[in-house]
Amino acid sequence: MEPGPAPDRAVAVAELVGALPDGVVVTGATEVEKYREDFARDGSAGTPVAVVRAQTADQVQAAVRWAAAHRVPVVPRGAGTGLSGGSSAVDGGITISLDAMRAIEIDPASQVAIVEPGALNVDVKRAAAEHGLWYPPDPSSFEICSIGGNLATNAGGLCCVKYGVTTDYVLGMDVVLADGSLVRLGGKQIKDVAGLSLMKLFVGSEGTLGVITRAVLRLIPGQVAGATLVSSFATMTAASEAVVAIRNRVRASMLELMDNTTINAVEDWRSHGLDRSTGALLIAQSDAPGQACSAEIAVIEECCTAAGATESFTTTDAEEAALFVAGRRNAFHALEQRGSVLFEDVGVPVPVLPDLVDGIAGIADGCGVEIALVAHAGDGNTHPIVVYDAADAASVAGARKAFDEVMALAIRLGGTITGEHGVGRAKRGALPAQLGDDVIALTWRVKDALDPDGILNPGAVLQPRAGGRP
Amino acid sequence: MEPGPAPDRAVAVAELVGALPDGVVVTGATEVEKYREDFARDGSAGTPVAVVRAQTADQVQAAVRWAAAHRVPVVPRGAGTGLSGGSSAVDGGITISLDAMRAIEIDPASQVAIVEPGALNVDVKRAAAEHGLWYPPDPSSFEICSIGGNLATNAGGLCCVKYGVTTDYVLGMDVVLADGSLVRLGGKQIKDVAGLSLMKLFVGSEGTLGVITRAVLRLIPGQVAGATLVSSFATMTAASEAVVAIRNRVRASMLELMDNTTINAVEDWRSHGLDRSTGALLIAQSDAPGQACSAEIAVIEECCTAAGATESFTTTDAEEAALFVAGRRNAFHALEQRGSVLFEDVGVPVPVLPDLVDGIAGIADGCGVEIALVAHAGDGNTHPIVVYDAADAASVAGARKAFDEVMALAIRLGGTITGEHGVGRAKRGALPAQLGDDVIALTWRVKDALDPDGILNPGAVLQPRAGGRP
Repeated sequence: MEPGPAPDRAVAVAELVGALPDGVVVTGATEVEKYREDFARDGSAGTPVAVVRAQTADQVQAAVRWAAAHRVPVVPRGAGTGLSGGSSAVDGGITISLDAMRAIEIDPASQVAIVEPGALNVDVKRAAAEHGLWYPPDPSSFEICSIGGNLATNAGGLCCVKYGVTTDYVLGMDVVLADGSLVRLGGKQIKDVAGLSLMKLFVGSEGTLGVITRAVLRLIPGQVAGATLVSSFATMTAASEAVVAIRNRVRASMLELMDNTTINAVEDWRSHGLDRSTGALLIAQSDAPGQACSAEIAVIEECCTAAGATESFTTTDAEEAALFVAGRRNAFHALEQRGSVLFEDVGVPVPVLPDLVDGIAGIADGCGVEIALVAHAGDGNTHPIVVYDAADAASVAGARKAFDEVMALAIRLGGTITGEHGVGRAKRGALPAQLGDDVIALTWRVKDALDPDGILNPGAVLQPRAGGRP
Repeated sequence: MEPGPAPDRAVAVAELVGALPDGVVVTGATEVEKYREDFARDGSAGTPVAVVRAQTADQVQAAVRWAAAHRVPVVPRGAGTGLSGGSSAVDGGITISLDAMRAIEIDPASQVAIVEPGALNVDVKRAAAEHGLWYPPDPSSFEICSIGGNLATNAGGLCCVKYGVTTDYVLGMDVVLADGSLVRLGGKQIKDVAGLSLMKLFVGSEGTLGVITRAVLRLIPGQVAGATLVSSFATMTAASEAVVAIRNRVRASMLELMDNTTINAVEDWRSHGLDRSTGALLIAQSDAPGQACSAEIAVIEECCTAAGATESFTTTDAEEAALFVAGRRNAFHALEQRGSVLFEDVGVPVPVLPDLVDGIAGIADGCGVEIALVAHAGDGNTHPIVVYDAADAASVAGARKAFDEVMALAIRLGGTITGEHGVGRAKRGALPAQLGDDVIALTWRVKDALDPDGILNPGAVLQPRAGGRP
């Protein structure tokens, strides 16, 4: 995709500015800079010719229609908290920020939330809670990430192990297509098989097929985690073995894992009362009602003990439990204090989790970098976090190598290069190794059908094709 | 799609017969007849030139490659229990029966079943149960329907109200595409966002995008329904109001509804001990563990009483409960004894369920037909069953009119023409009224991208286009 020559482009941008209300389109370097990168900070971001800070779906449509007419790349952007460069700006393109579109409406009788894409996950949860309802998907970043981004990446979180991921809660959506038209899919009905599952196709498409401007999200009655078990292990391998055993017996509502490096990073940053000498910490919760909760926790503890836990303790105090969970949620932020980081997000079938853990330790040794490990262990989804020194070329090279080797390991173990963060730009190079050329070709067929000029988030998910279409 | 002239076709069919092992391809009229219709018996079925009774994915590929080369329509078929004509044979086409491909492998550590499409739903459940695991989706027909058909229609069932539908349990699949190539999507990993959600697109595509030859299905630890509440109401409207109230307070594992006509049809067919004078019967179950179960049942009973239930009773006896549930599951079969039937499958947002129930009663009066009503009420998904006399032209016309009016009513109420049976051929005419022309056009773009020659299940879901592509 080549944008037109500079003078034409300036005229075109002026046309875009004029087509939308004052202040919606910004082009100044300082303003635009804020929208260039997401949290991946992977160096892939270009400089857009304009940022459209949309307030309505109409404005999104107008911007996409303009982009279609001028064949200008469009990068949709939510809160910018993505970890794979999926909303990195593109040189000569526009970024459409959905940040200002934050309306949330709860229909308690239908048990749905009707939300705009810029609404933060936490605000949807809060609005639902006012009616005794719950929107389960809970990325660690739920206080700062947007529903639009959650939909774009099919985001997961901590409660997925029992309650599923974003796609499981989407009942309806409005999407602006590559030509600027808007389609409405699904609705408030819970079961609906009328026509192809187009809605599910847009979930997880990372802005490459359309721009979601409204979603109908399923809510369920609120659940309360009755008890939290924290178990210490000498090694991550032993803790992983406990996870495999637990899953086969009960449906925990949380099964999170942190390694020694992460525990120490979290304690360095802010004390959460974690034992710095522990090799691995498993945080498990049960939200089974009544006495079933303590029964589930007893089973979980039994599995931990059998797998070699050195210490376990249970709390039914919500505040105490929150401190441990906060330690886990803050792991990314804490590790960022130790140096530059590369966020990984690989997943494997749960039984091979111990193999993944061992393999990652080997990669860290081989590449001469530190790899901290936190995991949504109950789903086999891990976040190896490569910590390196950006000022040291050897460390940078080692980190890059480790990042790639971890993905290759996950694929070898029958898993995935990304469980919940998305491919974005940071992982697109590794995608063919996981999917194979035939699935990549199939993906291009769908992409070309929905976005024939390739204006929607080019360079995300799929590598640009050399020499045109395959 | 016009098949070639007869002599060419005969040569081509001989080529197909020769390409596959003895007995796989059948062309005799008596054999072929068995594969012409599904349970919809909607009169749409043509006569295929051959039926391929595939034993392996390779054979499916060979058949599709042959069909692609000769531009012959391909209708995939599971157990033939579909209720919308989705596997009705096409004149001059081939039907690929997956009935013989029934392998089931359970990986208990990964908690997945790896199944071939011909495997019956009940057999997957049984195999999982041997490991203490459970495959939840449970269409009423689970004892006779195949997993391939379940995947093709994104089938639902009775436990969906708490446990979701087929798409929520699909982790991986092999699909034979329109050119005969086979792609493998997903795997045993639970969370995976690498690339577009192609797998979810194939679920519910009713054979129009590919032929699924293998699936990896998620299993969860087995749950036991601890208690069943059966409540009688004077009217379906009152019972529907109880359902709306229940959903807002607890997550029942079953919320099924039968009207007086259905109750009497079931009792006529075989006594299940149901009270023939009851206007509406609600069957609710709780599988909450331990004492939470009786607490949930108490809440459900409270809601029923508040909505005007004339009688409620609870049983914790599994056999007694099974009798009531069997009554509900046997409703279709029982109603078929009363005359010819048209199966409806409309769904609405739960709060407007009472409006749907009222509206259907009005349609029955207006069209001079009997409409029995059973419902997965907790999901707002109802099965109005139009009973008519096929020998009486006025009755046939009234039934057709009622069938169409019920779909129009569901759309007006913000719902769907099909919650779980699929569009097939019986409902394709009503699909544009629900989705709108823009979504139909989008659907064609996906269809054309994946099946450019339109050989996969032509006439299912989408109406054939007059005069070529739109």
